[in-house]
Amino acid sequence: MADWQVISGSVTAPRGYRAAGITAGLKPSGLPDLALIVSDVEAIAAGVFTTSVVRAACVDYCRQRLQAKHSARAILCNAGQANAATGDQGWADALESAQLLAEALNIPPESILLASTGVIGQRIKMDALRAGIPKLVAAASETGGDAAAGAIITTDLVPKSIALETMIDGRPVRMGGIAKGSGMIHPNMATMLSFVTCDAAVSTSLWQEMLSRAADKSFNQITVDGDTSTNDTLIALANGQSRTPAITEMGADAEKLEAMLTEVCQYLAKAIARDGEGATCLIEVQVSGAHTDEDARKVARTIAGSSLAKSAVFGRDPNWGRIAAAAGRAGVHFDQQDLRIQLGDFLLMENGQPLPFDRKAASNYLKTAAAGAYLKEDTVLIAVSIGNGSGSGKAWGCDLSYDYVKINAEYTT
Amino acid sequence: MADWQVISGSVTAPRGYRAAGITAGLKPSGLPDLALIVSDVEAIAAGVFTTSVVRAACVDYCRQRLQAKHSARAILCNAGQANAATGDQGWADALESAQLLAEALNIPPESILLASTGVIGQRIKMDALRAGIPKLVAAASETGGDAAAGAIITTDLVPKSIALETMIDGRPVRMGGIAKGSGMIHPNMATMLSFVTCDAAVSTSLWQEMLSRAADKSFNQITVDGDTSTNDTLIALANGQSRTPAITEMGADAEKLEAMLTEVCQYLAKAIARDGEGATCLIEVQVSGAHTDEDARKVARTIAGSSLAKSAVFGRDPNWGRIAAAAGRAGVHFDQQDLRIQLGDFLLMENGQPLPFDRKAASNYLKTAAAGAYLKEDTVLIAVSIGNGSGSGKAWGCDLSYDYVKINAEYTT
Repeated sequence: MADWQVISGSVTAPRGYRAAGITAGLKPSGLPDLALIVSDVEAIAAGVFTTSVVRAACVDYCRQRLQAKHSARAILCNAGQANAATGDQGWADALESAQLLAEALNIPPESILLASTGVIGQRIKMDALRAGIPKLVAAASETGGDAAAGAIITTDLVPKSIALETMIDGRPVRMGGIAKGSGMIHPNMATMLSFVTCDAAVSTSLWQEMLSRAADKSFNQITVDGDTSTNDTLIALANGQSRTPAITEMGADAEKLEAMLTEVCQYLAKAIARDGEGATCLIEVQVSGAHTDEDARKVARTIAGSSLAKSAVFGRDPNWGRIAAAAGRAGVHFDQQDLRIQLGDFLLMENGQPLPFDRKAASNYLKTAAAGAYLKEDTVLIAVSIGNGSGSGKAWGCDLSYDYVKINAEYTT
Repeated sequence: MADWQVISGSVTAPRGYRAAGITAGLKPSGLPDLALIVSDVEAIAAGVFTTSVVRAACVDYCRQRLQAKHSARAILCNAGQANAATGDQGWADALESAQLLAEALNIPPESILLASTGVIGQRIKMDALRAGIPKLVAAASETGGDAAAGAIITTDLVPKSIALETMIDGRPVRMGGIAKGSGMIHPNMATMLSFVTCDAAVSTSLWQEMLSRAADKSFNQITVDGDTSTNDTLIALANGQSRTPAITEMGADAEKLEAMLTEVCQYLAKAIARDGEGATCLIEVQVSGAHTDEDARKVARTIAGSSLAKSAVFGRDPNWGRIAAAAGRAGVHFDQQDLRIQLGDFLLMENGQPLPFDRKAASNYLKTAAAGAYLKEDTVLIAVSIGNGSGSGKAWGCDLSYDYVKINAEYTT
């Protein structure tokens, strides 16, 4: 039973946040391309970043900032240029961006965090940014969350946002999140960005722990094409403006807060997977019976990322063999005699043996599930058990369609 | 300078081998589907098998055999049914197959090795196999290598074989190899099989070491879609019929033999990658400057397996950003300031900075290279350096085309 309710308002649903999204002229398309989230007071800040050794300047910048102090007032995000592989000049541009916003907000530059998405190897268009920042600050409002969500996307088909509310100590605590996924029509735009705001009062170390665990169960469990970006960034702020007691250790309140954070991250992660390039449906892979949750997540991720399994789902083909083969090569040890595979309600394999099943009905399940007639969402469910362990985990992906190839092949640099 | 020459004759080029490929009625298509390679005398045998925990009966069978004794007389391979995920009955079928061939050849069943390729979850059609084995043995001849190469393929567009000869101690030593790759028109046929024959005299442990190293530089460095099969098998026989002195330790002769084995494996591995589903060209990724060869191979493999890079090559798009991003996420530490990327003769990035280059000319390179006008082969060359280390390695893949999705989505189980 979920302990929260969905509310409106995106990242500006929690108290004490303003946000904005404007067209600064960074994107050639003329669409919104500059976003701001600002907290009225210094907020606890946690972050999870790309593990790639080829990283954008903003990623190195945020890591340094959060190492020095675990708090921030504002997040600035530009879309259009990734500012990755741009060397010393890119680093100088990042510093200047923070300085400009700090002056406009009249706060120290140390309280600014940065994110960029766009073409690798391209610097931020600094003239447009310089002109845009005062307008961006002027546009910031307590209803600006959706505008921010719209300004961080690149080739995503839809903006992605959510807001939730729960009760802690008799008072409402709110959390909002926005995200962008991997749209690759332009070269190298495969960046995942997400920003979460919350008005709870929580200790810095606990907040970072919660965010890392939530990321492991959400953004780290989605795959569109297996490619990790130079710019992947997840930042979460908690500004204490709910006036609830400070959460400083694990316990009922902390668990409630972490569950809500995990839900926000999973909702956004699934939205990214569903919006994968050329995707016609979301694939949810549930793995159980593993020794550890980590093992289960690894198997789930491998299945969700298998080009063969993804192609089979696109073809609405109940091809359990491809699921079994992907599970087997995940790098997790299990006995193949324990393998059990279920597709929706269809049990396809048990005790490592294929079972007779109605192929036409199973294919029909794929058709209706992908069309949203099964779970009221366009979700295909694959459930796999690999033994008797207590480890379980989920991963999400999308099917592999002609349009994925079209989108990624037909753009010419 | 290569120390060998290409000769004709496939796996029957070395002395003391016979082979056959016949239509036994295992494949619904009526194409050849049963292959035999037999040595006149007991041969040293080495093997490398799938690392998947979901394995076919033949893989477990070969591992047990080779653990008990490192020699064999014959390899039996059926195409059509993978005999994977077939439980106890599949294991019994494997044993019976070996027994039948042993009787027909009048040799002990312990001297038989087995391989299967085809649909996962399907048992071998034993009636067809029983009727086929006497015919197969009768057909075995010293010119049967090409027939065997044709009978192990499934949906490969072309059979794959090679034979080389070198001189050791003034006498010719010959080596032949055949392989099949990942054709996935039918469900779950993504198996890589390769069989190598040689007439050198070599010690068992050295032969296994050489084969493992050769596999690491060839079959383990190709990727069509990242999916590893339940049936992947590489077996190499050395029967000593060249009458050259036994090679029992590393030295000039051993190095010559290993170089030839590596060349045979690389030739066949590249042929598999080039014949990847829907592929229009081979992509060769050369990585240098790594701390170790293993690191270099890992980076090369990640680039060759990147869906985004593969799509870019299909689109003839010199998209260095996708190459940089793939290198960065390979799990190998390097300084991004050391990254250098070259596409054919075009230097696209150096010292981690993108360089200006003629995009049209670079795209034209991709077009002509893919069409075979550059290296007289349909090969696109990507050269990446990640530092000053002495580690280097190569990997091979193919581009990702509409036809990949078509082939893998439109078949209905």
